[in-house]
Amino acid sequence: MYTQQLVFIAAVLTTPLPSSANCMYGTSLFPRAEGAAVEVSNFGYVGLQGPLNWAALAAENSACATSKAQSPINIDSTIQLAAEAPKVVIPDVEAAEFENLGTTVEVIVNGTTTLGGEDFSLKQFHFHTPSEHRVAEEYFPLEIHMVHEAADGSGAMAVIALTFQLSEDGKTTTELLTAVTENLAKIAAPGTLTETGPLKFAEVINHVQTTPLFQYTGSLTTPPCAEGLTFLVTKKPLPLSVKTYNEIKAVVKFNSRYTQNSLGQGNLISVGATSLASAGDAPAGNGTVAPGNVTGIAKPKPSGGAATATGAKATATSKSATATGDAEVKVEGEHHCILGSCREVAKAKRFRLRK
Amino acid sequence: MYTQQLVFIAAVLTTPLPSSANCMYGTSLFPRAEGAAVEVSNFGYVGLQGPLNWAALAAENSACATSKAQSPINIDSTIQLAAEAPKVVIPDVEAAEFENLGTTVEVIVNGTTTLGGEDFSLKQFHFHTPSEHRVAEEYFPLEIHMVHEAADGSGAMAVIALTFQLSEDGKTTTELLTAVTENLAKIAAPGTLTETGPLKFAEVINHVQTTPLFQYTGSLTTPPCAEGLTFLVTKKPLPLSVKTYNEIKAVVKFNSRYTQNSLGQGNLISVGATSLASAGDAPAGNGTVAPGNVTGIAKPKPSGGAATATGAKATATSKSATATGDAEVKVEGEHHCILGSCREVAKAKRFRLRK
Repeated sequence: MYTQQLVFIAAVLTTPLPSSANCMYGTSLFPRAEGAAVEVSNFGYVGLQGPLNWAALAAENSACATSKAQSPINIDSTIQLAAEAPKVVIPDVEAAEFENLGTTVEVIVNGTTTLGGEDFSLKQFHFHTPSEHRVAEEYFPLEIHMVHEAADGSGAMAVIALTFQLSEDGKTTTELLTAVTENLAKIAAPGTLTETGPLKFAEVINHVQTTPLFQYTGSLTTPPCAEGLTFLVTKKPLPLSVKTYNEIKAVVKFNSRYTQNSLGQGNLISVGATSLASAGDAPAGNGTVAPGNVTGIAKPKPSGGAATATGAKATATSKSATATGDAEVKVEGEHHCILGSCREVAKAKRFRLRK
Repeated sequence: MYTQQLVFIAAVLTTPLPSSANCMYGTSLFPRAEGAAVEVSNFGYVGLQGPLNWAALAAENSACATSKAQSPINIDSTIQLAAEAPKVVIPDVEAAEFENLGTTVEVIVNGTTTLGGEDFSLKQFHFHTPSEHRVAEEYFPLEIHMVHEAADGSGAMAVIALTFQLSEDGKTTTELLTAVTENLAKIAAPGTLTETGPLKFAEVINHVQTTPLFQYTGSLTTPPCAEGLTFLVTKKPLPLSVKTYNEIKAVVKFNSRYTQNSLGQGNLISVGATSLASAGDAPAGNGTVAPGNVTGIAKPKPSGGAATATGAKATATSKSATATGDAEVKVEGEHHCILGSCREVAKAKRFRLRK
């Protein structure tokens, strides 16, 4: 009964309603309409709602711009593996509430994770695409955050982050994902909810308990960016099918905060403010290119240096390319920078025409 | 002859060499070793080399922090389609130079694109993963930038940006990608080069000439971030196989600049500096969490507001969830914010236990 009713309402809500239709909420025609509405987040991933402006959205978000232990990070060799595996208990369920919060899709679940002798209560898990964490600089197409609060009410939080990699056959996947996303199309619109299919957690629990986890103390990756949160990030990704990935991406669109600075280093917004000061606050060019200019082909207006300047040249490999040999691949030319890549450019063309 | 020789050298170079091995460069043993080295970029996508600090890396990069017409953008309804299709001519080649610049992998090719009556010379194309542009907020797993300079030497630049979507069967792909990445494993190390397989451009040219293209005037997406560059972005993505995607991601790792502000709006680094000022420059918590803390489970230290504060609540959907009906899904509870999602939290658990 509940399932049928909810599915019906969700189908209605995912169709954009004219504003007058709101008057029908709460009537006998749509008795669960208010219940089916989920509050959406007031932050986002574009423009002034985006991560560089989160601190300005609410006073309690100041850590987003000032904290020096922010997540997500690039997991490099300074990040250690968890000394012991967490103990995870999540009861299988026939269905769970599945909500579109505008900034992510989220599943309400129950469970207990024991970590370092402390019990944490699982509250929900939600999706990030592409991944927020990077491992040795590489990202993943999907990351799930399983959000826990300390069972003792202290307010401590822990997140188990599951990374996913697309399967080469395009098909192999994590069964939990298939069940979760069964009704994903019904919550395409922010603020709507539905329910998942039956959820079995054994595969994911086994993965978390038996494969290595990176552990570090970081922050919420969304406002208010509060510090002191324990992250456990899977070193080995779980499998993901293309179908599930494309479906999640079509609804979530993009919700990955930019990679934060190394733990203990300056917040990158402070770093950016300093870089802005070093740029002299001088506007670059006229700064007023009209949007949607579809006819004019403008010339680049570099500020302080030409697009072909050699100043951006790297020193890591300072040898000039002076190969000799096959005339067609001679690399003897001037330095040249395009889109930030500065190289010796061959005077002879470095490709061979098809005969 | 050339092919065999280059492949041999590339194989040598992708194996990390002891520093003493550098002495062998230029000898008769490694006659093309210097030619095989490619200068790597001095910017990156992590920490102080990352996009928020590009302006500080070189004086000519100031536009990265100050320009109001930066790329990449979220392509929304303000961005128009190109009024006319470009005319693209790219000769097929038996092989082309394929370089790992540290920040991307790049193919040196030749061609001419006619756009708005002007001829642009194709210089190279390179890869971004995940995509830099977003369309209606959604990102794509891969974007190729085909970089052109005005044939008249005026310095004007144009980039054709090809977006790619993973095929549901995991296999269907764009043949050009298969040929380009044939030797990708040989340039896994930044600063190395190899050559591609035979490149046929008909499929891509047909796509660019016959499907809609978004057009706008933006900037280089890498330092020096020079303005005034014409972008043509495919509205319809090309197909991509999982194998090719995973291979590219394993080498490129991540090289997508964060989404820039709408054209004509303030540079997001200025916006961030303002948000930092509004945050009062107050350090959040002690800001000195040690990296690699693998035992302590810290409590969140929000600055100015608790992680469970309701201040971040959205107003877009201000109705409280007051559903009645099935007791197991009653949504009558307190407001609760976890990871930035603030909702009415059910006092009754909103999932049904598996029998």
